[in-house]
Amino acid sequence: MIIVMQHTASAADLAAVVDKIRQAGLSEHVSRGAERTIVGAIGDERALSPAQFELMPGVERAMHVVKPYRIVSRESREGNTVVKVRGIPIGGEAIQVIAGPCSVETPEQMDAAAEAVRAAGCRLMRGGAFKPRTSPYAFQGLGISGLAYLQNAARPRQLPIVTELMDVRMLEVFLEYDVDVIQIGARNMQNFDLLKEVGKVNKPVILKRGLSATLSEWLMAAEYIAAGGNHNIIFCERGIRTFETAYRNVLDITAIPALKRETHLPVIVDPSHAGGKAWMVPSLALAAVAAGADGLLVEMHPKPCEAWCDADQALTPQELSALMSSLRGVAAAVGRTL
Amino acid sequence: MIIVMQHTASAADLAAVVDKIRQAGLSEHVSRGAERTIVGAIGDERALSPAQFELMPGVERAMHVVKPYRIVSRESREGNTVVKVRGIPIGGEAIQVIAGPCSVETPEQMDAAAEAVRAAGCRLMRGGAFKPRTSPYAFQGLGISGLAYLQNAARPRQLPIVTELMDVRMLEVFLEYDVDVIQIGARNMQNFDLLKEVGKVNKPVILKRGLSATLSEWLMAAEYIAAGGNHNIIFCERGIRTFETAYRNVLDITAIPALKRETHLPVIVDPSHAGGKAWMVPSLALAAVAAGADGLLVEMHPKPCEAWCDADQALTPQELSALMSSLRGVAAAVGRTL
Amino acid sequence: MIIVMQHTASAADLAAVVDKIRQAGLSEHVSRGAERTIVGAIGDERALSPAQFELMPGVERAMHVVKPYRIVSRESREGNTVVKVRGIPIGGEAIQVIAGPCSVETPEQMDAAAEAVRAAGCRLMRGGAFKPRTSPYAFQGLGISGLAYLQNAARPRQLPIVTELMDVRMLEVFLEYDVDVIQIGARNMQNFDLLKEVGKVNKPVILKRGLSATLSEWLMAAEYIAAGGNHNIIFCERGIRTFETAYRNVLDITAIPALKRETHLPVIVDPSHAGGKAWMVPSLALAAVAAGADGLLVEMHPKPCEAWCDADQALTPQELSALMSSLRGVAAAVGRTL
Amino acid sequence: MIIVMQHTASAADLAAVVDKIRQAGLSEHVSRGAERTIVGAIGDERALSPAQFELMPGVERAMHVVKPYRIVSRESREGNTVVKVRGIPIGGEAIQVIAGPCSVETPEQMDAAAEAVRAAGCRLMRGGAFKPRTSPYAFQGLGISGLAYLQNAARPRQLPIVTELMDVRMLEVFLEYDVDVIQIGARNMQNFDLLKEVGKVNKPVILKRGLSATLSEWLMAAEYIAAGGNHNIIFCERGIRTFETAYRNVLDITAIPALKRETHLPVIVDPSHAGGKAWMVPSLALAAVAAGADGLLVEMHPKPCEAWCDADQALTPQELSALMSSLRGVAAAVGRTL
Repeated sequence: MIIVMQHTASAADLAAVVDKIRQAGLSEHVSRGAERTIVGAIGDERALSPAQFELMPGVERAMHVVKPYRIVSRESREGNTVVKVRGIPIGGEAIQVIAGPCSVETPEQMDAAAEAVRAAGCRLMRGGAFKPRTSPYAFQGLGISGLAYLQNAARPRQLPIVTELMDVRMLEVFLEYDVDVIQIGARNMQNFDLLKEVGKVNKPVILKRGLSATLSEWLMAAEYIAAGGNHNIIFCERGIRTFETAYRNVLDITAIPALKRETHLPVIVDPSHAGGKAWMVPSLALAAVAAGADGLLVEMHPKPCEAWCDADQALTPQELSALMSSLRGVAAAVGRTL
Repeated sequence: MIIVMQHTASAADLAAVVDKIRQAGLSEHVSRGAERTIVGAIGDERALSPAQFELMPGVERAMHVVKPYRIVSRESREGNTVVKVRGIPIGGEAIQVIAGPCSVETPEQMDAAAEAVRAAGCRLMRGGAFKPRTSPYAFQGLGISGLAYLQNAARPRQLPIVTELMDVRMLEVFLEYDVDVIQIGARNMQNFDLLKEVGKVNKPVILKRGLSATLSEWLMAAEYIAAGGNHNIIFCERGIRTFETAYRNVLDITAIPALKRETHLPVIVDPSHAGGKAWMVPSLALAAVAAGADGLLVEMHPKPCEAWCDADQALTPQELSALMSSLRGVAAAVGRTL
Repeated sequence: MIIVMQHTASAADLAAVVDKIRQAGLSEHVSRGAERTIVGAIGDERALSPAQFELMPGVERAMHVVKPYRIVSRESREGNTVVKVRGIPIGGEAIQVIAGPCSVETPEQMDAAAEAVRAAGCRLMRGGAFKPRTSPYAFQGLGISGLAYLQNAARPRQLPIVTELMDVRMLEVFLEYDVDVIQIGARNMQNFDLLKEVGKVNKPVILKRGLSATLSEWLMAAEYIAAGGNHNIIFCERGIRTFETAYRNVLDITAIPALKRETHLPVIVDPSHAGGKAWMVPSLALAAVAAGADGLLVEMHPKPCEAWCDADQALTPQELSALMSSLRGVAAAVGRTL
Repeated sequence: MIIVMQHTASAADLAAVVDKIRQAGLSEHVSRGAERTIVGAIGDERALSPAQFELMPGVERAMHVVKPYRIVSRESREGNTVVKVRGIPIGGEAIQVIAGPCSVETPEQMDAAAEAVRAAGCRLMRGGAFKPRTSPYAFQGLGISGLAYLQNAARPRQLPIVTELMDVRMLEVFLEYDVDVIQIGARNMQNFDLLKEVGKVNKPVILKRGLSATLSEWLMAAEYIAAGGNHNIIFCERGIRTFETAYRNVLDITAIPALKRETHLPVIVDPSHAGGKAWMVPSLALAAVAAGADGLLVEMHPKPCEAWCDADQALTPQELSALMSSLRGVAAAVGRTL
């Protein structure tokens, strides 16, 4: 940790800071500059909290030098982690597209959706049985029967399923229905009790970025899962909240290279929630792959205009197929396959 | 709902929109302007979703006219709701200050804290037993024993207690320990399953605003609680996330008058989390009361420099007492009491 | 314009609104819904201001239906505008990369830079003679002699030049030095007097997006230029300001398809300022082209570690050449050429 | 400056950093920690740029220790600066309210406005002759004749005038018309050429905060003015841009104590532009004074519903008088006068 003293700090102020460092079992390194004295704390700085120094007299600010994340950090592991879902690799050379409807509605809808997913060449399927909705009066998802419809449509087509877990009490049911990838939604990125529980199971987890989460907070949320023993974590950028009102969110493409520099884990992108309109999805999806994403999470509905939620952001089966073929070209251009 | 047609929309496009409105059991009102045709849907517009219209050919945009919140809305009730906590009114003429440490640490610390809270003239006490921490390696709160320490210190001094509930599975324990006010933290503002559960109990709830939640989303989160039958809801503004890095959050003072225009429920402010530094707290607290807040949630620690978390934002007992006396003057100037 | 009345609005309130509409020479269309009465104003709504209605008794809100931009709007012109710079088309099938150093430093540096720009296959050159710097004590650019160095290095290599105009009093000098494209920087996007002046000359203008400008404000800034008679406008997305501190700005890739839907003018991207680090530039540049950008504005310095400003975001000549060849693949994949 | 080396940095990397420090005429102080080596540069760190270190091999990050502002900094001067405008002190014990219409419209309007300003007990008057408008088709202000109307109405009532300067070429006219306080608007906060020019004259300047300017950028903008020799600078907080759409801007009340900690110059608040609605103004104005503001800039129009711009945010003369009397109570409660 580095502690910057105020220019008016007294010798006693400095001595108190040094004392506090030593009490925590670290040693100090004092550097007197032209305008400020700086104190470095040598040892495991995780034992120290900047806040405790910043309220001491004569201290201007204190900051950690080492990043707070460990297991998910690139420093902890050489190379990239490839998360395998029923044998399908996420984070390797091949880009994976996970497609399907926003919400599970009926067995017929799911059957048509699964067929379209397979036909377009996607290898995993998504569908929401439990839906986080802004309004308590909106459709909240089919619940458990939704898990069954999703699994019934996907399994015969060898499509592993991805679905969102909102309530910690439902985890057991997810395991019963053999959900292949547990999705943690943006609103639950810092639902720490939920993170701790999925950290204890041996299932891949897609961790969506919170609406206004910094990269550091997102990495720490993943660290909660990893600290429990589950290292099969996939980050999913899905747009952040900004001042712009012309579209729902701003897809933060910069997060892709920046995150990949910090972590060895895979990073995918959800272009559907980011933009909120189907006509934006192809541009955003292509950009994501060009920027280095390891996969996509795309909404597709057999008949978007009849969709029970987020109707305006779902691609049609034809649009999904067309997107897959444009993606192939971009993937090749950046040395990846689809 | 209002649907604005594109300037290139055809007669068939318009007819399809009208059809869709009628199918939902509403009637239409078509207004042909100089540059755009506008369709109004007459009837209960909650049956319609803008998204379903926005993907129709020839539609430029569709929007609801009526606000989506009902029970919490000012339209639903005349006058202001006063939430009573063991007889102490929140939302009336008197401003209530809820004070106490960030986290419960030891029985001795809690005893000293409760004494200081009482001595300063505050009528409710706060303290965290379960702490939402960014890092899994940080102190996570004492848990259940923290509830006991808090209650043991507060009860003899007739101080109702306020503490945060993070995990739906702990609600029963909160009821056992007779927690007086359940706090829902910023990170859980859209943890809908948690909201639904606290909606079923008969306890006042402080609902903190999410870090980047709009007023509308916040009101809808309250609506989740209210829809379950629990109308004892207190909104708590605690700073929003912006681009500014000179302080932790930006206290959104404008939210106070704006929220009070929309809802009949009380609005309080947490100046401690907003600024993140003890030296900012008095300015922010005075501003909140001047702007019309019904109360404050303030961090105070018997010895801030020994606090286990957020040490730099806690007031000392002396600072809390001093703040209470400045608050009295401002409260009087705006026609309130303390 | 649409005016939504409050649910408590009286007949007199409604009559006053209707009166005001008629006084402005428009006619009204009143639609009485189940919960709200809505008034449509028929005629040229630009004569009306929502603000004047919103302060009338009984009015909930008022909003324009027609977009406020005209000349730059897609509605004003079929197809895409191609801006020609000394014969080089921007906005057509070919993607143009404008490269060069952040600031003009010396004749030797500019000569080396121009050679590298040409060698990499870029067709236009950038370089700053007047630099907007956060600090008054930082290097402010060489000024007029910088224009000369830039022109002397670029002209022999047939590279049209792009450089930033900050001060309206310098416009004449820019014309004297035959600057080919005038760049308006992010901080001056709403320097309306500057916009008006460049609107009067017959030179292509690159209009960078303000740090927190909405698409609508950006389009209106372009409208200022267009209203003066100069329609040779190129939009340049360069990252927006958000809460994220891991990188300088967030490149708003969604702005590309969204802007192209609203305007017929070309849209380019500056990946260098967006990320602020050279290692991010290739990812962002590839993403921009994949998303549909018509060109790029890229910083390259013969020796980045000796650059007088923004040293950490400049590519080396080798990195620029490598980027050009990756761009070619992505451009081809989305049906463009480089 | 502090340079943090990567954990993988080699001895050669470190040597290169040390070399670069010495070449700039500073000396180094190397501190080897458990996980990172940290290098402190001893001497005038303004000679060094973090960017130039961050692109060196083995460097993780580099940061300045000393704040970049000098003249405006609290370190440069003991106590608070009181700016005098025709003998009226801004920044002392007395809080000053500057009131008047958004734009100068007619001599009659200005006469009525000046009379209302005086009657309410305000001691300075505002009015816009040159208006920065988002749309080129909106009313752009009366221009020079507006200055005359403003001065004619204000001078006989001993009200010094405050008006906005947008174009550097108009400065001379402002001096001719004896404008008492030059206002630099939010959109021009980083119009550096304009700042440099007003830095050369001997007139008080109100410097509004840019829509998304950090405190540091705002202080540096003031430093531009101060560096030219003009130290009569008044900061004006007027709301920042955030994700919230329920009101125009978020008044950043935290900026008041935070700015006052950094600078000796006065800080005032514009509650009218912040909220954008007249009904919010009293709450925001009271909060500003409670938080420590030295003054207010308030919009008042003799007949708001006839105002040519921003009609919905202007107070009536009666509302202004009522506000002044509530302000008196709050001012007294925080030890100030009005």
